[in-house]
Amino acid sequence: MIRGLLSVLLVLVAVSSSLAKPEKNIAKRGKRIPQTLSRGWGDQLIWAQTYEEALYWARAQNKPLMVIFHLEDCPHSASMKKVFAEDKDIQKVADEDLIILNLVYETTDKHLSPDGQYVPRIIFVDPSMTVRADITGRYSNRMYAYEPSDIKLLLSNMQKAKKLLKTEL
Amino acid sequence: MIRGLLSVLLVLVAVSSSLAKPEKNIAKRGKRIPQTLSRGWGDQLIWAQTYEEALYWARAQNKPLMVIFHLEDCPHSASMKKVFAEDKDIQKVADEDLIILNLVYETTDKHLSPDGQYVPRIIFVDPSMTVRADITGRYSNRMYAYEPSDIKLLLSNMQKAKKLLKTEL
Repeated sequence: MIRGLLSVLLVLVAVSSSLAKPEKNIAKRGKRIPQTLSRGWGDQLIWAQTYEEALYWARAQNKPLMVIFHLEDCPHSASMKKVFAEDKDIQKVADEDLIILNLVYETTDKHLSPDGQYVPRIIFVDPSMTVRADITGRYSNRMYAYEPSDIKLLLSNMQKAKKLLKTEL
Repeated sequence: MIRGLLSVLLVLVAVSSSLAKPEKNIAKRGKRIPQTLSRGWGDQLIWAQTYEEALYWARAQNKPLMVIFHLEDCPHSASMKKVFAEDKDIQKVADEDLIILNLVYETTDKHLSPDGQYVPRIIFVDPSMTVRADITGRYSNRMYAYEPSDIKLLLSNMQKAKKLLKTEL
């Protein structure tokens, strides 16, 4: 047996525990609806499963990545999800111009939480693998949070992310 | 902007490129079928989305984790998936006794590829976060590979994984 997984995973598990919810313990009666990668944020969009996969796509296709952190039982996440899924412009840009990922667990990359781990939180990553900490919402205490009334700002931020950074490399 | 994501991610992207397939480039005609987390390995099972999430569940529920690495366009993966999804005993143990994750991209944890990155490959992880490199299939050159005819061996390995390791801690 190989012992000692990356210690970073241990840290992560500690961090994740504040977010986690034992979905495995749902009642096992009746037929379950298969879980989707979209989780309701746009069933017609192509979602990356993991951050690693999303970063690969961002580089391979030279498109910015949008990471949506949310929780299934958070009312703010739910209301944001509803307007996101129903807004045709948002869905079109997400489909055509961005690599998209929605996560209910945090990753090990601390750059994805520039001002903390809260939900809903939307972070853009340039295909140069630079987190776009400059693309923010309206709230100075939670700079990457959006409310339903901020949907036009989010759309404008999605378009801002499309203007890729020039890399020195 | 925050520069310099974890260098490990750069390594990862290099590694992933050998596995990746630009699914985003699918034809955009007609209505898409929402992507599922099961990817056909058992629509009625509860799948973890990411390795981080799966490790959290394994610890929280004190259950072993089974990670299935596969590829959508690999015929060996496809034939293994079919027997896995149709075998009632396999599905029952996966549902009741294991935390399950299927991935088409590699993770950053090298312990998940004790003898290389190939598909299909099935790795068990004890809730003590120890990779069970001792739980192997029949093939000495690809110790964690399974073929459809190995389904009973896989079931027996899933049951073996349920006997948790004693940790010294």
